[in-house]
Amino acid sequence: MDFVATEHQHQRFNPLTGQWILVSPHRMLRPWSGQQEAPQKNDLPEFDPKNPLCPGVVRQNGEKNPNYESTFVFTNDFPALLEDVPIPPASDDPLFQTRGARGTCRVMCFHPKSNKTLPTLTPKEIETVIEAWIKEFNELSKKYTWVQIFENKGAAMGCSNPHPHCQIWSCSFLPSEAETKDRNLREYFKKHGRPLLEDYVKKELVKRERIVVENEDFLVVVPFWACWPFETLLLARDSKIKRINDLNASQVRNLALVIKELTIKYDNLFNCSFPYSMGFHGAPTGELADNDASHWTFHAIYYPPLLRSASVRKFMVGFELLCQSQRDLTPEQAAERLRNLDGKKHYSENE
Amino acid sequence: MDFVATEHQHQRFNPLTGQWILVSPHRMLRPWSGQQEAPQKNDLPEFDPKNPLCPGVVRQNGEKNPNYESTFVFTNDFPALLEDVPIPPASDDPLFQTRGARGTCRVMCFHPKSNKTLPTLTPKEIETVIEAWIKEFNELSKKYTWVQIFENKGAAMGCSNPHPHCQIWSCSFLPSEAETKDRNLREYFKKHGRPLLEDYVKKELVKRERIVVENEDFLVVVPFWACWPFETLLLARDSKIKRINDLNASQVRNLALVIKELTIKYDNLFNCSFPYSMGFHGAPTGELADNDASHWTFHAIYYPPLLRSASVRKFMVGFELLCQSQRDLTPEQAAERLRNLDGKKHYSENE
Ligand SMILES: O=P(O)(O)O[C@H]1O[C@H](CO)[C@@H](O)[C@H](O)[C@H]1O
Ligand SMILES: O=P(O)(O)O[C@H]1O[C@H](CO)[C@@H](O)[C@H](O)[C@H]1O
Repeated sequence: MDFVATEHQHQRFNPLTGQWILVSPHRMLRPWSGQQEAPQKNDLPEFDPKNPLCPGVVRQNGEKNPNYESTFVFTNDFPALLEDVPIPPASDDPLFQTRGARGTCRVMCFHPKSNKTLPTLTPKEIETVIEAWIKEFNELSKKYTWVQIFENKGAAMGCSNPHPHCQIWSCSFLPSEAETKDRNLREYFKKHGRPLLEDYVKKELVKRERIVVENEDFLVVVPFWACWPFETLLLARDSKIKRINDLNASQVRNLALVIKELTIKYDNLFNCSFPYSMGFHGAPTGELADNDASHWTFHAIYYPPLLRSASVRKFMVGFELLCQSQRDLTPEQAAERLRNLDGKKHYSENE
Repeated sequence: MDFVATEHQHQRFNPLTGQWILVSPHRMLRPWSGQQEAPQKNDLPEFDPKNPLCPGVVRQNGEKNPNYESTFVFTNDFPALLEDVPIPPASDDPLFQTRGARGTCRVMCFHPKSNKTLPTLTPKEIETVIEAWIKEFNELSKKYTWVQIFENKGAAMGCSNPHPHCQIWSCSFLPSEAETKDRNLREYFKKHGRPLLEDYVKKELVKRERIVVENEDFLVVVPFWACWPFETLLLARDSKIKRINDLNASQVRNLALVIKELTIKYDNLFNCSFPYSMGFHGAPTGELADNDASHWTFHAIYYPPLLRSASVRKFMVGFELLCQSQRDLTPEQAAERLRNLDGKKHYSENE
């Protein structure tokens, strides 16, 4: 029997994390009688006087939001990272190692209206969001080693407020995932003399099996090693872009267009406001800013949990937590479905 | 200001995975207006003629379950791993690496009654379950490199059938998590001449800050590096026990008692059928069975998602997926709460 990727289970290697993923395409037939997600529809009011992210509302700590008209940034009222905390004492016991952590957590509202999401903003409004990201990044990257801009979208992804917003957590240290990626990218560069993701972009542009969206400056693929069902990797085509603040005006415009198209496709996949966690990764900053960053390419990762419909998600649980990630449909099948969806017209315009 | 672990954010190192965890105890005050879990109560009927795991029921594939009276094992009707599949062709491109995967997935019902769970079984009935695990392990470990016994309990942990059951996935390869753990345990052994978890057990027995349950043969702690709010590590006190099938009759009895006490405490924490994913880890088997396993100690890990109540869980999303795991209360606080709970009487006996 010949091997057929869409029929036969196999494993794929993620060169960014060094982990293997189990792909079991034949498992799509499995019936589902487990937890159902409540499909996210966008039926919120524009303004909710009780929502602490809305313009003009007084937050729990007594601060009043300005009547903002585009983006609005403030320090998280319940941050996981504070700026000034004492450092734990060092231990020479390898089983009880601690280290310090300083940082700051900010929240950024994308738009004054609660019933907006990135795919329903105009390209111009998304550009404003990207410019606000760059402004924050410029400031925070001076002080912090890692500035993580991320969006948790939808209740299924632990988002506790439906107003369109993202978070920016900045840390005095290189987080575990960033450390691993930095090491793997550096090793590849040492061996091949080119950034890993530059090679990857080139090869995906030739193979054309996993492409979802592309323009002059960016490429979105379901990566060969995707672990979530409709996971995507949004890559800068030019590896000279190391961090979000390396983008010039036309690249900002093209990033806005790619984000809009990708998130419209996501929403159109199951006709719902598609949940995901996403974030940008680029070369470290702060005290590491002057290190050689030749091995880095600026990119974003989208981790969306839905598998078969607006209410059936993939759970990364027992086997996945204890052994390794597992997926059902192949990355190529996922890419084909996303590629073939309308990326211009949001499903809500038909309703 | 002096460092106080229950007040000041810090990081802890997991020597089994090589990953850091961010601990932010001050964040427990954060309000929650996100997704609410439906608390799992045990109000199922004993028997449901539509449930494919119940005795005497005909499953989707036409097979009829026997009228089993204790445990019952069958091959998963929709397995992620099949025994005989062709192997993908080798690639010399480091960005498109695949490898083969063979295996088998079994389901084990713990008890004929759907409204039972491990904490409400008698110690004797739990012993029967452990003996069934050992029987399966004996058979599967001859052929497979890794035999993963795991239980996904509760809809919040992706469990698609409420009948008390676990799964056993066996693989022809060492999964990523097992590979990392094997490497880290071996390195520690090389350096210190003793198994890592043997040293860890000894130290936790002296410190006594993180102990939840203990008896002659087993110790349950919230590990120093716990990442889920009430995560626990169930350790064999004797590192001569490398795998589940090394247990003798009295160790089986003591494991049953420890499982019963731990899971009663879990249920009593928020007065609900406490969701978790759990599984056993021990030295590799199959073609790796004859390798030196001195560095291994048999243990189980429990990953429960609930954080503050039967309906508020911890989400491992944006920052956690992109950077590193984050927890709110400290492992010592979690251990103290679990330790102080009744481990003998299940909350349902009071209702
Ligand atoms: O096999 P089940 O219980 O239907 O499925 C559950 O456990 C599996 C193993 O952890 C996961 O791959 C699935 O995502 C989860 O829903
Ligand atoms: O800060 P939020 O949106 O309230 O919280 C959400 O995102 C955080 C960062 O990924 C996670 O730590 C939380 O578990 C999640 O619920």
